[in-house]
Amino acid sequence: MAFRTQIKVCFSDIDNAGIVYYPRFLHYFHLALEEFFATELGIDFADVLHTKNLAFPTVHLECDLVRKLRYGDRINMEVSVIHLGQTSITWGYKGYRAGDEGGIVVEGSNVTVCVKTDTFEKIDVPEWLRQGLKTQMRASP
Amino acid sequence: MAFRTQIKVCFSDIDNAGIVYYPRFLHYFHLALEEFFATELGIDFADVLHTKNLAFPTVHLECDLVRKLRYGDRINMEVSVIHLGQTSITWGYKGYRAGDEGGIVVEGSNVTVCVKTDTFEKIDVPEWLRQGLKTQMRASP
Amino acid sequence: MAFRTQIKVCFSDIDNAGIVYYPRFLHYFHLALEEFFATELGIDFADVLHTKNLAFPTVHLECDLVRKLRYGDRINMEVSVIHLGQTSITWGYKGYRAGDEGGIVVEGSNVTVCVKTDTFEKIDVPEWLRQGLKTQMRASP
Amino acid sequence: MAFRTQIKVCFSDIDNAGIVYYPRFLHYFHLALEEFFATELGIDFADVLHTKNLAFPTVHLECDLVRKLRYGDRINMEVSVIHLGQTSITWGYKGYRAGDEGGIVVEGSNVTVCVKTDTFEKIDVPEWLRQGLKTQMRASP
Repeated sequence: MAFRTQIKVCFSDIDNAGIVYYPRFLHYFHLALEEFFATELGIDFADVLHTKNLAFPTVHLECDLVRKLRYGDRINMEVSVIHLGQTSITWGYKGYRAGDEGGIVVEGSNVTVCVKTDTFEKIDVPEWLRQGLKTQMRASP
Repeated sequence: MAFRTQIKVCFSDIDNAGIVYYPRFLHYFHLALEEFFATELGIDFADVLHTKNLAFPTVHLECDLVRKLRYGDRINMEVSVIHLGQTSITWGYKGYRAGDEGGIVVEGSNVTVCVKTDTFEKIDVPEWLRQGLKTQMRASP
Repeated sequence: MAFRTQIKVCFSDIDNAGIVYYPRFLHYFHLALEEFFATELGIDFADVLHTKNLAFPTVHLECDLVRKLRYGDRINMEVSVIHLGQTSITWGYKGYRAGDEGGIVVEGSNVTVCVKTDTFEKIDVPEWLRQGLKTQMRASP
Repeated sequence: MAFRTQIKVCFSDIDNAGIVYYPRFLHYFHLALEEFFATELGIDFADVLHTKNLAFPTVHLECDLVRKLRYGDRINMEVSVIHLGQTSITWGYKGYRAGDEGGIVVEGSNVTVCVKTDTFEKIDVPEWLRQGLKTQMRASP
């Protein structure tokens, strides 16, 4: 099963139309990715950035927003690895409203490239990360 | 020529990798869209929402992030109408770093559907908006 | 003991000086307040707003920022009721870095007035809330 | 006259009670401060941080929120220097709703200390900045 974490829609995520401001969904993706690193790979994202000197700028993203969310909703957000390239990783995200698992709320992906945090020099996906992601991919096919 | 507005990267848009946090680009798209309504269509976006009772939830978005941006950068952001459907509008966005017009920084689009702000009932693109957008599309082919 | 909830500093809370952007601390106060309602008063803040028709605009705030926080830090945030007036409530907040309980990171308060969410008409603190807060104040003197 | 800059309330600044989320006012203070540096002191805030190696963490803030703001409002925000200490600067902010100059919307202050951006070592207010702020204080008593 894919990694899943719960995110609460907070008071300030709501826009003046009364629903979650759509750029916040990309923020939710990032929050879920931070949890993925901590839980699935056993390393805090802050340590990835500053100890491993590894950052993941996004170069492409796509997203379908299927249902609107309101304040009080909770999202069960799945994170998976869609593709593991030489220097890039494609991450997939699926969000379900808690208590309403039948219907997807949001589904998206982003392509990140691996760079050194301090210089932004592009590098290969490091071996420690590649192995961790492969293990995770086998566990949630 | 397409509508263009300038957006300053602000201090808090920067993430812990030292570049613009990628969900902020979608926020920049929205800021530019708000300016597009005020300047090109002559109506404040707040009035569209609350006087015209018209909102534009996003149902799909795509984005290529070509160059990173840092604090101090300014973006010249173009907004255009890519497709005008029965109930949906597809908006296009291209961002250039001010002072470096040769190279695009970010390029994206989102599909919005027209709904009533108070009920979120889907409606046709209203005639006043359709005419305004058609005029703008003829001016920036 | 005062109500306490944990908040993680997230990747995008960091500003271009490398520390938590100070307005985010006020956001942390609000996140903690939302948890306070859910846990201590047994009502979701979204229901307070929309079912109880009760909102809490802030009219005054004060805050001391004692230690800087970085990405990866977690804050144990205490919420308490400092004063319960006729129409106003003064909330207190104290934040400690998790794993470093000796030293306070942030300490602040805000004064909120009770209004109807739909009209913003000022009202007395409703009896259900007054009783709940009094119980909580007795429990954490 | 004090330095003044205009800030537009944007779509996403609004919270689920329909007014500007109060932590956003502190963000407006910072936006106005960034403009103050560019306009009054002739240096981009990004250059202060990274070329001058000077940052201004906030250690105390106070704020009165007098009137609520809604989407569509514009704020004329004044920035002034209230006190210039050895290592600290106290900044003052007053916000007025554009078109309604009689009544103040928000008034606040924050105390910042001067530190080196790269090490966060506390330093004296540098002479170039002290002179610039003194000139500005004489011009807007």
